[in-house]
Amino acid sequence: MEEKNTDKKPVEPRSNKEKEQIINRLKRIEGQVRGIQNMVENDRYCMDILIQLSAIQAAIKKVGYTVMERHTKKCVAHSIKNGDGEGMIEELLEIIKQYSK
Amino acid sequence: MEEKNTDKKPVEPRSNKEKEQIINRLKRIEGQVRGIQNMVENDRYCMDILIQLSAIQAAIKKVGYTVMERHTKKCVAHSIKNGDGEGMIEELLEIIKQYSK
Amino acid sequence: MEEKNTDKKPVEPRSNKEKEQIINRLKRIEGQVRGIQNMVENDRYCMDILIQLSAIQAAIKKVGYTVMERHTKKCVAHSIKNGDGEGMIEELLEIIKQYSK
Amino acid sequence: MEEKNTDKKPVEPRSNKEKEQIINRLKRIEGQVRGIQNMVENDRYCMDILIQLSAIQAAIKKVGYTVMERHTKKCVAHSIKNGDGEGMIEELLEIIKQYSK
Repeated sequence: MEEKNTDKKPVEPRSNKEKEQIINRLKRIEGQVRGIQNMVENDRYCMDILIQLSAIQAAIKKVGYTVMERHTKKCVAHSIKNGDGEGMIEELLEIIKQYSK
Repeated sequence: MEEKNTDKKPVEPRSNKEKEQIINRLKRIEGQVRGIQNMVENDRYCMDILIQLSAIQAAIKKVGYTVMERHTKKCVAHSIKNGDGEGMIEELLEIIKQYSK
Repeated sequence: MEEKNTDKKPVEPRSNKEKEQIINRLKRIEGQVRGIQNMVENDRYCMDILIQLSAIQAAIKKVGYTVMERHTKKCVAHSIKNGDGEGMIEELLEIIKQYSK
Repeated sequence: MEEKNTDKKPVEPRSNKEKEQIINRLKRIEGQVRGIQNMVENDRYCMDILIQLSAIQAAIKKVGYTVMERHTKKCVAHSIKNGDGEGMIEELLEIIKQYSK
């Protein structure tokens, strides 16, 4: 899926608190990725590296669900209430398929 | 799965070239994670963020397969040749299940 | 996730054509499952069996997306229009997580 | 992945007990698929159908891991001991990627 909506915004702006929570989680993930770089540098055992990679995948999936839930409750619900939800629902299902890979 | 083997090493040390290739890919992923932090900071549209998160998932999975392939060809194969492969195969299958989540 | 809604129905009944299409796909999957039973009976090569199992997984996922899309466009959209969509959206996200495993 | 090995056999034939165990699990899955056909016929609630589909996915994945484990311990290990394991390991990793979708 290509990025299509570069200037589009959520129907309701994220609060600073919302932003902070997601960014903190992403910063932890960033730190985990750096941690794995060190593990590779120090030639750590493959399984330990794979376990860490798997932990990052789980963390990213959770961030994705948080964004997906808010999107569905705000943007998708808003468009459904305005009678033009079909396109948004199809867009949502497209990303759900992407996430199930 | 908990990290168990902190001092264990691959049966054959990774070459500098191997390390460099994996670390470069991890650095790109690190940059992508920072990129998403900016998207959240700039309140970008949810779908664009979800597409980027999905791209990171795919990139991490690929790094995982690279590590898994080397591990199977080197560590697992080595232990099988030495007649004690069962434990290593079970360990491998455990991480495969983890990756299929 | 436990089955909770045994007597609950979709907000809009499925047409006979819709039913027929899904049931035909499920019958093909049923046939594929029987096919694998024969492969096991005839001690076929493991990879061939794994490839068939993987094909069934893909077919089931597609049936799931069809049911999920209709559910979102009909049941979820209906409840959102009636102002009580939160519960339905959370239910939807729960099954999305289930499908991403 | 296309089926390639139609006449190839596991390096060690499956015992009748092994066959019986896998076939019984596949028969249960077959029954579950028929069960969903009835649910669709009776226009059951979408979530209940999705939960059942998800249960079948989990059951099929487990059968896959059983086949994959035996394959790795028998066929892959055998070829590694004979010094020509690379191709088998690559074949194994190909199916692992398939299963992680």
